[in-house]
Amino acid sequence: MKIAIEEAKKGFGFVNPNPLVGAVLVKNDEILSTGYHQIFGGPHAEVNAISNATITEGATLYVTLEPCSHYGKTPPCTELIIKSNIKRCVIATLDPNPLVSGRGIKQLKDAGIEVIIGILEKEAINLNKVFFKFIKEKIPYIFLKVGITLDGKIATRNYSSQWITNSLAREKVEKYRNFFSGVLVGANTVIQDNPSLTCKTSGNRNPYRLILDKDLIINEDYKIIQNNSDKKTFIITNKKNMDKELFQKLEKDFFIKFITFSDDENLKDILKKISSYNIDSILVEGGSGVISSFFKENLFDGGEIMIAPKILGDNSAIPFISDFSPLNINSAFNLDNIKINLYDNNIGFEFYKEEGCLPV
Amino acid sequence: MKIAIEEAKKGFGFVNPNPLVGAVLVKNDEILSTGYHQIFGGPHAEVNAISNATITEGATLYVTLEPCSHYGKTPPCTELIIKSNIKRCVIATLDPNPLVSGRGIKQLKDAGIEVIIGILEKEAINLNKVFFKFIKEKIPYIFLKVGITLDGKIATRNYSSQWITNSLAREKVEKYRNFFSGVLVGANTVIQDNPSLTCKTSGNRNPYRLILDKDLIINEDYKIIQNNSDKKTFIITNKKNMDKELFQKLEKDFFIKFITFSDDENLKDILKKISSYNIDSILVEGGSGVISSFFKENLFDGGEIMIAPKILGDNSAIPFISDFSPLNINSAFNLDNIKINLYDNNIGFEFYKEEGCLPV
Repeated sequence: MKIAIEEAKKGFGFVNPNPLVGAVLVKNDEILSTGYHQIFGGPHAEVNAISNATITEGATLYVTLEPCSHYGKTPPCTELIIKSNIKRCVIATLDPNPLVSGRGIKQLKDAGIEVIIGILEKEAINLNKVFFKFIKEKIPYIFLKVGITLDGKIATRNYSSQWITNSLAREKVEKYRNFFSGVLVGANTVIQDNPSLTCKTSGNRNPYRLILDKDLIINEDYKIIQNNSDKKTFIITNKKNMDKELFQKLEKDFFIKFITFSDDENLKDILKKISSYNIDSILVEGGSGVISSFFKENLFDGGEIMIAPKILGDNSAIPFISDFSPLNINSAFNLDNIKINLYDNNIGFEFYKEEGCLPV
Repeated sequence: MKIAIEEAKKGFGFVNPNPLVGAVLVKNDEILSTGYHQIFGGPHAEVNAISNATITEGATLYVTLEPCSHYGKTPPCTELIIKSNIKRCVIATLDPNPLVSGRGIKQLKDAGIEVIIGILEKEAINLNKVFFKFIKEKIPYIFLKVGITLDGKIATRNYSSQWITNSLAREKVEKYRNFFSGVLVGANTVIQDNPSLTCKTSGNRNPYRLILDKDLIINEDYKIIQNNSDKKTFIITNKKNMDKELFQKLEKDFFIKFITFSDDENLKDILKKISSYNIDSILVEGGSGVISSFFKENLFDGGEIMIAPKILGDNSAIPFISDFSPLNINSAFNLDNIKINLYDNNIGFEFYKEEGCLPV
């Protein structure tokens, strides 16, 4: 099962909003083949493992998630497993969708296949925290990322911010950009930093680029608008304030997609609209206003705060979060399920609402 | 020599402003005895090692610092070593005082003793970073300690600060209080937190308690004034503003010692005055104003910034440092020679002006 989990990880960034799944076929203590779900819409892990094997009869199939039993983009895996005369099926965890959970297992058992469930279940759930959340709550998994000085700032008073964290920490951010379906920033971050928000590591795909810009203050002067050949840049804006001419120009000339909302809709409503584009997970990269909103609405699942041993010592520098006013330490936000990452002389506080870390 | 260094550490907190020194006597690959400098004014490590041995003739003496060659509070160690018919003397590092450095070695060599120098020299220097600084610069070794939230605050807007860091981090602070001769805080910290600044760990001694209170705003209502049976509380204040009546009351009724300064004296002048009380090292525990002053005057040798995974998110909360206004990231204070300490889910950035960590 460990090998199956490692196989699953090879799909990082390419299968969303499908789950990461890995499979291993074993007979007489020998591995016959391995397989993983490689790309959204492509064959499932079980199919790949079975087609990679020369024989399958009497074999044991290890798979990290309950095999599907329905026709979707591909035919049901259970049928293929039964046809392949596999003797035993070891499954890490059930399908999280309550409508289908257990059905695949029932089909396998009905066909006389021995089924074992729950091997390395925790690891398999951690592997697909994003998928499980998206299936259950129908809003994207939200992961906050900030790089700060020791005194909690993301930029100097005049918005200089390059670079606070070191290259090792920034490499980790690249991994996050490859792992999550989308990256979200506020309009001020676009204006101050003019980021591309692409994945610079070769072999990786670009995330969807989401700009939270309720007053539509950005225009075609920025990289994120200009470099949109993959048509993955979205602007999220309030209907009321929208400059119609600019809207049409960005949509027509730069292929920007718009997600609009009205005054009576909140951040959660916006996330629901984002999820309708099959964006199952978002890396929120700031700035201050955006991070503060996600804290205010308690709408994050986890995050990583990276700290460099630098000090600005300036009350007018830009804090990574603001707009709260706790009167005692016990009313501070307490981050839970902490994992501490070391990046040479920078550190990262990785935190989660629920137990278990993402496999990034 | 490793054993000698471990011996030396047993003197932690009791020998200042003397150095930590350990010694081991060896003959035919067997340890005859060990010794360390136990208490300020007491016998030196070499004397203890020699008096703990039944025979000394033909032995090798390992000692972490060059043996003294002059009459101070005790007779010169070189004399005793020569008298004891020791054959060989292995020394980790020379005496840092340029007036006597090398003299002890010369006396030993003149008496026909083989002398080897420089074994584990780096470790021996780290052991006595405080002593070396004090001897060379005649001002105390300054170590800054702050406990902050992830957003760089030491207290909420209304000065609630208990507790930001966890118990493991606070245990480390106890170790620092035992290691350094003095602890320094600003008057505001006394007023807001009413700390005792004593060492709570049994077997440890209390540090000198120094209050930087230029306007003499504290009075006899605070623990640090009331609990002064050891007469180790000092107030550092500006002559000009001093309330004479309060001054006399604190001095007479509470045995508070005063260190005064005038408008034309700076922080370094104050440190010189403190050093005249044989206070060789100071743990600066804040608050914000005091920490900022030491940064402004660039008068610290090292420190530890402890961070808890808590967030206040309030621009009006109390920052650990302020009054600077860098315009770009490259003009931030960069902390050097970082060592990262883990305290469960809290972390500490230990930093030093020069290479090498304190042995705390």
